[in-house]
Amino acid sequence: MDKEEILYIIKNNLIGNNKLKLLLADVNTVDIAEIFEEVDRETVIRLFRILPKPLASDVFAYIESDNQQIIIEALTDTEIGEIMRGLFMDDAVDFIEEMPANVVNRVLQNVTGEKRKLINQILQYPDDSAGSIMTTEYVFLYEDDTVKEAFDTIRNTGVNKETIYTCYVIRKNRLLLGVVSAKDLMLALPHQRIKEIMYANPIFAGTTDDREIIADQFQKYGLIAMPVVDKEQRLVGIITVDDIVDVIVEENTEDIEKMGALAPSSEPYLKTGVFKLSKNRIVWLLILMISATFTGIIITNFEAKMVALPILMVFIPLLMDTGGNAGAQTSTLIIRGMAVGEISPKDIFRILWKEIRVALLCGFGLGIVNFIWVFAVYGQNLMLSIAVTVTLYSTLIIAKMLGSVLPIFARRVKIDPAIMAAPMITTIVDALSLIIYFMIASAILGL
Amino acid sequence: MDKEEILYIIKNNLIGNNKLKLLLADVNTVDIAEIFEEVDRETVIRLFRILPKPLASDVFAYIESDNQQIIIEALTDTEIGEIMRGLFMDDAVDFIEEMPANVVNRVLQNVTGEKRKLINQILQYPDDSAGSIMTTEYVFLYEDDTVKEAFDTIRNTGVNKETIYTCYVIRKNRLLLGVVSAKDLMLALPHQRIKEIMYANPIFAGTTDDREIIADQFQKYGLIAMPVVDKEQRLVGIITVDDIVDVIVEENTEDIEKMGALAPSSEPYLKTGVFKLSKNRIVWLLILMISATFTGIIITNFEAKMVALPILMVFIPLLMDTGGNAGAQTSTLIIRGMAVGEISPKDIFRILWKEIRVALLCGFGLGIVNFIWVFAVYGQNLMLSIAVTVTLYSTLIIAKMLGSVLPIFARRVKIDPAIMAAPMITTIVDALSLIIYFMIASAILGL
Repeated sequence: MDKEEILYIIKNNLIGNNKLKLLLADVNTVDIAEIFEEVDRETVIRLFRILPKPLASDVFAYIESDNQQIIIEALTDTEIGEIMRGLFMDDAVDFIEEMPANVVNRVLQNVTGEKRKLINQILQYPDDSAGSIMTTEYVFLYEDDTVKEAFDTIRNTGVNKETIYTCYVIRKNRLLLGVVSAKDLMLALPHQRIKEIMYANPIFAGTTDDREIIADQFQKYGLIAMPVVDKEQRLVGIITVDDIVDVIVEENTEDIEKMGALAPSSEPYLKTGVFKLSKNRIVWLLILMISATFTGIIITNFEAKMVALPILMVFIPLLMDTGGNAGAQTSTLIIRGMAVGEISPKDIFRILWKEIRVALLCGFGLGIVNFIWVFAVYGQNLMLSIAVTVTLYSTLIIAKMLGSVLPIFARRVKIDPAIMAAPMITTIVDALSLIIYFMIASAILGL
Repeated sequence: MDKEEILYIIKNNLIGNNKLKLLLADVNTVDIAEIFEEVDRETVIRLFRILPKPLASDVFAYIESDNQQIIIEALTDTEIGEIMRGLFMDDAVDFIEEMPANVVNRVLQNVTGEKRKLINQILQYPDDSAGSIMTTEYVFLYEDDTVKEAFDTIRNTGVNKETIYTCYVIRKNRLLLGVVSAKDLMLALPHQRIKEIMYANPIFAGTTDDREIIADQFQKYGLIAMPVVDKEQRLVGIITVDDIVDVIVEENTEDIEKMGALAPSSEPYLKTGVFKLSKNRIVWLLILMISATFTGIIITNFEAKMVALPILMVFIPLLMDTGGNAGAQTSTLIIRGMAVGEISPKDIFRILWKEIRVALLCGFGLGIVNFIWVFAVYGQNLMLSIAVTVTLYSTLIIAKMLGSVLPIFARRVKIDPAIMAAPMITTIVDALSLIIYFMIASAILGL
């Protein structure tokens, strides 16, 4: 039975709670959580109470924060304690981060002292750090354990761990010595010692490492989990690949937003308020508007020439837009290339050499079309056609150069290259294209 | 020892092959593969020959295709056979796809008939389908197997499987019945039957399903592997999360490229030729250039008015740029929101209502700055200041409307919404902003 059918049954109260319970037993946890998003407040609470205890925590982790709050406010202290016991640390922290202070206090009063300490510690890691996305439920083994003992440990503790497929080998003081995969364990002999089969050079993260760099490493090495250590190399948590997939998508969204002249936001669009949305946009709009006034000043200086030959005005949008687009194309490729690690600042001369040739080729195609159009439509004026076409060609070359150089320069001076995307490049190229236009027009047309 | 040090040792021939072999034994496979990218042709071949056999195939899978070709051309038929035996099916197919016909023939002559058949079959799946990214090395169990038998199966066959953490339960005719995780197996009793502990409703893909949709499901459900079935529900392969991470990054790159008015390309920038780069750009540049001529035509119609009041020209770049940027901001959010599944076409009225209010708010801020600037700098001309500011305000509202509607409209008519990003929106808004400008200026300034 799919989600829509179950939703229909719930909304129309077609079956009793016991039957509904049986029905939900066969539905994926994530799909159950989605059902919560589409029912009213009372049903949210009723539905949550029907869920069997172990399933309740799993579902709770996937429910959106506004409904999490509704549920918590309807539960008793004991029930809250049960939910919290069933939550993995990363899900518990994600949930608490979104709650108002009074809910947080009530939740923290109903967890064990040890868990409270851990939650508070993780809450203090910076937003984009390894510490903030790690969880603390992992299987640890000691180097002198045998494979048989390791299996016993997994059997006794594994059911509450986020992954058992990588086990972490530590000293008594939690110093990380190595990792051993469940695969290695299954293929080993029962009496072998962990230290004989463990891998001693695992890739690991520090608690304050940037989550974007960690995501790159997951991708590069094809990892499914990574240990996180503190400054003394003691194991404090693990990061699992499902969270990394979310990080990659979020980081890409941030990049795309920056490239669209928006302050990045981690909230979904439909849940963001109008003031927040406006705030995320107005700064860049203002900066770019003020920059565009310089282009206006350029026009002021050439007003007399345009009044003398008004047809010059006609080609301004075409030259500005084409230059802007050409520059945006290049900067898009360079910014993305740097983001995925395919391009580094040292490649600048190779890039410039490529872009000059691309500009010459594209300029040739565009130039022919443009020349024919200007010549045919605007009174077969040869000199005018030449002036516009030469400007187009020159603008294209300069736009492609700037599209290459500016993102790399930004990276060099530690500014995010994404701000050198379409909007900024367009604004800069607009001004330059007009200067070139008026210079070339003056020279060729003798104004 | 890190990669740079080893590279230094290799380049300067500081140690013999045997010592080098020992050194490489401690280096991660992926890092060894990277070393191949930075040495010359002869060293590529020498280095590959000193790798121990099982490691050789693993490293080969990560080497870039130009070096893969160099290696294959230097190997004997027997050696090629050995490498191919060690490659997982997905890596084998990725490798073969990049090779010229003569290399492909030689490679296929040196694999078993069964493997050749499989490779040919996978090569036929469309580029973006589940079939093209799946691999065929998985552990399968039968429903009547006991847990003990399952462990024996894993021990006997698991070493050559891409993942053993999810095992697939099938009938003799390969019909997929369910999945059982290694975790379930480890926590079960030896005499339990697989059918008692398996999960019978796994999320699965069809061979021709779009890989982007599969990636969304990996993200939604936090999967580490997914079975792929044919039309008769028979298991033909699995997709693992490491490949999905690559898919997500590639699909995001494609989206970003489309949003930057580029034909998407799967090749890294630095490895793409100048002709290919130009081809990926010129089509959009031409389309947008021709569109911009319409904006020129609008100016032609108002030429006389601008000659009468040349100062009107000064504000054209500002109005065009700000409108374009405001529209691009909105379309960026809507396109990304649809790509990650947060926004669907049915939300259009909620979006429009949000955007109108955002436009009013942003317009208020920009309008004040703009009014003061025009009034102060351009001769304290009240009517002119009002005309420019009202145009700015109107343009902003229209730009935000178009930025919402056009991507959603594109999705509705099954065009990729990403083409309605900054470049296209800017071009359209440019034309509209000028029309508004001239209408408002005519009305307010009585031209």
